Amino acid sequence: MSEEQSRREQDLVDRVVRSFDGCPDPRLRYLVQALVRHLHAYLREVRLTEAEWEKAIAFLTDAGHITDDKRQEFILLSDVLGASMQTIAVNNQAYADATEATVFGPFFVEDSPRIEWGGDIANGAEGEPCWVEGRVTDTDGSPVAGARIEVWEADEAGFYDVQYDDDRTAARAHLLSDEEGRYAFWAITPTPYPIPHDGPVGRMLAAVGRSPMRASHLHFMVSAPGLRRLVTHIFVHGDELLDSDSVFGVKDSLVKHFEKCEPHDPTPDGRTLEGRQWSRVRFDIVLAPAGASEGNRGHSVTM
Amino acid sequence: MSEEQSRREQDLVDRVVRSFDGCPDPRLRYLVQALVRHLHAYLREVRLTEAEWEKAIAFLTDAGHITDDKRQEFILLSDVLGASMQTIAVNNQAYADATEATVFGPFFVEDSPRIEWGGDIANGAEGEPCWVEGRVTDTDGSPVAGARIEVWEADEAGFYDVQYDDDRTAARAHLLSDEEGRYAFWAITPTPYPIPHDGPVGRMLAAVGRSPMRASHLHFMVSAPGLRRLVTHIFVHGDELLDSDSVFGVKDSLVKHFEKCEPHDPTPDGRTLEGRQWSRVRFDIVLAPAGASEGNRGHSVTM
Repeated sequence: MSEEQSRREQDLVDRVVRSFDGCPDPRLRYLVQALVRHLHAYLREVRLTEAEWEKAIAFLTDAGHITDDKRQEFILLSDVLGASMQTIAVNNQAYADATEATVFGPFFVEDSPRIEWGGDIANGAEGEPCWVEGRVTDTDGSPVAGARIEVWEADEAGFYDVQYDDDRTAARAHLLSDEEGRYAFWAITPTPYPIPHDGPVGRMLAAVGRSPMRASHLHFMVSAPGLRRLVTHIFVHGDELLDSDSVFGVKDSLVKHFEKCEPHDPTPDGRTLEGRQWSRVRFDIVLAPAGASEGNRGHSVTM
Repeated sequence: MSEEQSRREQDLVDRVVRSFDGCPDPRLRYLVQALVRHLHAYLREVRLTEAEWEKAIAFLTDAGHITDDKRQEFILLSDVLGASMQTIAVNNQAYADATEATVFGPFFVEDSPRIEWGGDIANGAEGEPCWVEGRVTDTDGSPVAGARIEVWEADEAGFYDVQYDDDRTAARAHLLSDEEGRYAFWAITPTPYPIPHDGPVGRMLAAVGRSPMRASHLHFMVSAPGLRRLVTHIFVHGDELLDSDSVFGVKDSLVKHFEKCEPHDPTPDGRTLEGRQWSRVRFDIVLAPAGASEGNRGHSVTM
């Protein structure tokens, strides 16, 4: 590339960055000016062709048109590019032995049913019963009593309740940890499922030779006063999808051993499983102090 | 930031990049892997908060929903971030004294009317008459005969013909250069207008304190066998918007002196202007050889 060409390209970057100098919100100014620098660095590095630029515009247009109240293609795009997971990482800094966070996903619902110790979240969702138990502590090892534990998951057909048309509430609930920080509930053994892949993101995954499948997982969101809210999953040791999770949610520390149990094995709470196989898993949860993340959490960009 | 935190973030980038290793199209693989590197570098640098990530998703969703056959918010977004102009720059490398390119814009129409030397492109569009003339040469200075010159512009109300509902064709045409490379036509003196700013891009410009106005301009697209197609504008010397063009299309070499003429001044072709003021401008066009751009023009990504 000639010096003149390089100068023209850099001059353009500088001009665009300067155009935001008057932005009254300093955080927004920083975000857009950094976006311009990184976006232009990309265009200049890959020498994007005009035909490729047109394909990118068409891709975003298609993503916009398939997105509605029930389908969010831009979140899927962020997920499959690892951008969602990187945002989680940035906002949930490593802190002592605090449990790691992972992607929130689009299927959480407010006001889930409350269950007690040993209750069943399934509420009719099909799947192999799974006993889940553990203890919530802080990073000093002290038990956290009364932590609110939200759990949700797909059924064995690979669908969350909200993906059905019948307004069911199933395979989701919340419970509170006891005085010793302990919790336990019945769920269903997680099974793998694909992210929605009949849109532009699915076509992109196909073009690049990637699978839309998510590794089997059970969602948790755990909150308690004075502690950092934890959004995470647990994954199933031995799941062949652990290394190819389509949204990069898997972390080694979140992969748990789900012990296979036979129908005649005694259940922890004496429940009778009517001849069915079941599984059990332990997940001890360590919450960081509130404010353990650096940076700009809670700052609201005025736009 | 702790070493552990930094390691976790970098590991994620590496995992996402590797997920595209199996992409069968090497150009597409390069494009997506570079996108991941730059996108994650941005997220890590600005420490994007989860609330900001949600705003970005909502912005893209709004842009998708306002986009239809007549409105393209993603192109506007690319334009106001300078990404369109940088793509033009990358694909139209500086070459000797070849005329510089600028943004194409969304208002070009195929099959414009043909006019002859000295014809009028206005066809009813309101505005001050403007005589435009010049010569098309190659970078050796040899005249280019038979170059196809497409020209189009907004009327004095700031609208292109396609923005009206009545299927008019106005203020656009094409003509051919003569044996000496010369061309001349009547147009209307360019006036400023805003890009559509009633959508998310307009709200973003307002939030950052930028104007949606484009500097006054007249569009050209010039093509001839064996020479690089030129898409450009000419701008009006003295226009106060030259330094704040909302899509960064202005280049010094494209700013031309539009000479103000009085009703009684003799016109170049003897046309009678019935007491109106008019203007005149000269724009000599130098075309680079075909293939003067580096890179991947014409490579088609399979997606």
